[in-house]
Amino acid sequence: MREAISVQEAREAVLALSRPLACESAPIFDALGRCLAAPVVSSRRLPPRDASAMDGYAVRVEDCLAGASGAPAALPVAFEVAAGDVSGPELKPGEAARIFTGAPVPRGADAVVRQEDTAREGDCVRIHVCPGPREHIRDAGEDVETGDRVLETGARIGPSEIGVLASLGRSLVQVYRRPRVAILSGGDELVEIDGDVSGGRIVASNAYMLSAACRTLGAEPISLGIAEDRPESVEQQFRAALSADCIVSTAGVSVGDH
Amino acid sequence: MREAISVQEAREAVLALSRPLACESAPIFDALGRCLAAPVVSSRRLPPRDASAMDGYAVRVEDCLAGASGAPAALPVAFEVAAGDVSGPELKPGEAARIFTGAPVPRGADAVVRQEDTAREGDCVRIHVCPGPREHIRDAGEDVETGDRVLETGARIGPSEIGVLASLGRSLVQVYRRPRVAILSGGDELVEIDGDVSGGRIVASNAYMLSAACRTLGAEPISLGIAEDRPESVEQQFRAALSADCIVSTAGVSVGDH
Repeated sequence: MREAISVQEAREAVLALSRPLACESAPIFDALGRCLAAPVVSSRRLPPRDASAMDGYAVRVEDCLAGASGAPAALPVAFEVAAGDVSGPELKPGEAARIFTGAPVPRGADAVVRQEDTAREGDCVRIHVCPGPREHIRDAGEDVETGDRVLETGARIGPSEIGVLASLGRSLVQVYRRPRVAILSGGDELVEIDGDVSGGRIVASNAYMLSAACRTLGAEPISLGIAEDRPESVEQQFRAALSADCIVSTAGVSVGDH
Repeated sequence: MREAISVQEAREAVLALSRPLACESAPIFDALGRCLAAPVVSSRRLPPRDASAMDGYAVRVEDCLAGASGAPAALPVAFEVAAGDVSGPELKPGEAARIFTGAPVPRGADAVVRQEDTAREGDCVRIHVCPGPREHIRDAGEDVETGDRVLETGARIGPSEIGVLASLGRSLVQVYRRPRVAILSGGDELVEIDGDVSGGRIVASNAYMLSAACRTLGAEPISLGIAEDRPESVEQQFRAALSADCIVSTAGVSVGDH
């Protein structure tokens, strides 16, 4: 009988034989749980323009300082900017513009005051909290600049990465193929899940567990069924697996000296 | 404007309205990641019979004691028991039986000696390590007895649970339906992933991220697309979701006073 080798040795032997899987282009929803085969470089600036981070009022900071009496500044609301507005007027000195989250900050404005920090009075808005410069403005390119490498080769694609890819308009992504794992059970006492267990036979349950584990890890399990306790039967199943370009996981195969 | 409620209050309000999802029968592979809607009670004994945990020799312990001279016991190998053998001869005093992992322990034997602890010499085997009573024997029912409650209602089905269900021959299992989660984006600045982003528009990327997160958690995401920034548009989408019996997750819907 050959001596058993250590887990470390077995691991090294397997890794020495392994090679990266092929790449393929996948729709992002099919890429969930898989690994990037190429870095993702942004062709966009995000946000594309200075945008409001809050519902509130776009202002010039200098117009918001409390007066000599300590009374909060009151500014006429000159116009409104909604998310999706492409171009609008410039904010003139002494004016405020009603603005909503995600809307482009009008030229001339250098801060946004949160709705909660204001009181609307007819056509005017009273500014209770004077903002700092650029406050509640998300600067163009603050998240991503054109040319930024946002994800690296090998990165595992989870929900956050899906969000990043979507924001860059990447509906297709280069990923490594899912590993295919062939699962082979061995033992004359074994039957499939619906099999006859009379006479002390048992279900090849490890194969079902391993198959589920493969799916959990993002691999594609391929069931090779149950090999008989004869070297030829096991060899035949291994060859079938290799010809299908699979990794083989054995669920208790033993072909000793019997 | 209505006061915001705390996360705790919002959570309680949502849970007060929630009810358990319907049950359905699912093939075990489709049950991965889902929750059991009924306990699983075993109709089997596992292992079904006393079985060897090792490749080696079935023996009587009393026959394995070293002789007066200190020489290891040598026993004739009377027969062989392989996994899958349904019935075999009884082991007589002074005999050993070649046995393999998973094979039924022959009547008369009360221990198994590991192959590594023996030396085969023609028709005899020399016992280098005297086993304890029942050593390397997996007792019938050691893992599961008939009538054992092996999994409880609500248990999340992972690879281990799949293995347990398979070993009990359960190819179908009662599970709760997957939660359906409708995802609604709101904002006139938003486009779908392949949309035109000129003029500062951005992809509704949160919807893609949330959809992936739902799938990761075992829920079924349903995209409602992008609602316009008008209360009627949002209401219409919410009604569509409710009629489809969905949980609604909003990716930035805001219908303030504009």
